[in-house]
Amino acid sequence: MPLAPWRSPIARALYRNRSLAYCKFVQLATVRPDGHPANRTVVFRGFWEETNQLKFITDFRSQKIVDLYEQPWCEVCWYFPKTREQFRLHGRLALVSEHTQDDRLQQLRSQTWQDLSLAARAQFSWADPGEVRDLNASFQMELPSETEVLPEFCILLMDPISVDHLELRGDPQNRTDYKRQPDDRWVTIAVNP
Amino acid sequence: MPLAPWRSPIARALYRNRSLAYCKFVQLATVRPDGHPANRTVVFRGFWEETNQLKFITDFRSQKIVDLYEQPWCEVCWYFPKTREQFRLHGRLALVSEHTQDDRLQQLRSQTWQDLSLAARAQFSWADPGEVRDLNASFQMELPSETEVLPEFCILLMDPISVDHLELRGDPQNRTDYKRQPDDRWVTIAVNP
Repeated sequence: MPLAPWRSPIARALYRNRSLAYCKFVQLATVRPDGHPANRTVVFRGFWEETNQLKFITDFRSQKIVDLYEQPWCEVCWYFPKTREQFRLHGRLALVSEHTQDDRLQQLRSQTWQDLSLAARAQFSWADPGEVRDLNASFQMELPSETEVLPEFCILLMDPISVDHLELRGDPQNRTDYKRQPDDRWVTIAVNP
Repeated sequence: MPLAPWRSPIARALYRNRSLAYCKFVQLATVRPDGHPANRTVVFRGFWEETNQLKFITDFRSQKIVDLYEQPWCEVCWYFPKTREQFRLHGRLALVSEHTQDDRLQQLRSQTWQDLSLAARAQFSWADPGEVRDLNASFQMELPSETEVLPEFCILLMDPISVDHLELRGDPQNRTDYKRQPDDRWVTIAVNP
């Protein structure tokens, strides 16, 4: 699959904002089973191999896992402060958990686990997120094994079907829509900001 | 109505991140009529008078107006980079448009219009946002009157019923849930990060 045309503006934005560690923080919106939206910050962990799919990590016990079972569609909002531009990526989320029956995806899961920092790995051994805090619960920075992936550790792959790129700099502002066609080609349209 | 208990941590975060102009940028998630989530950056414009309602501005022609007619529930995700903390505010959106029959709300609408910069006001006179760009369309920085509010100009008031505050700093991280009760009192609970 060739690189989608929105990959180059995202790569440029990542490069120009690289002095800000948090330029890889994006907001992921899902829909809860009750039909209300949910929204949280997640860390962009690169694209999956040669695809246009964005990679995130998550804990199997987190609420977004429940959300995506009923509604896999999501929208990622990615604002780059330095260059003042926003990408809105609309697409589907796929879960890669310990139960996923696909060798390539399990390979991705264990490789991503190994690439995590010790502190990031430790979080997957913490007490259930979102539950009332038990003062005796363990939140220690214990070091789970680098090779044995904890069952709570999951990957989310986000496969965009449309991307809306807004550049606030410029007079007037520029806005570009990218839409994936049924044959997987991408169409690029300049739209009003 | 007294200040909700999450107002003080938000005020503190705003103060500590005040060197970043974009610390007032938040991501607003809504649900589209087709059931998919939508997510975009909006600017926090303060609280409405003595309430706990967040104020945003929007264009009547924007997609989020369509979204909130069918699903007024939204979630605001607010990440503060300097202090590394996130607030997730869940609640309902109310629209204040030229058709709103409420003197106080119309007063709010015209006051907010007057407080906008010239450039911000000009955007409401631009060609329809999201439509295919017409190279002849006007995006000039013309200056709409300070006193005559353009019909496209709307206010969104967001009334939270729960707030989830996550502080990434600290070992372990801290997470606090604030939940509004049916009698409008707020309950504060420490939860697992």
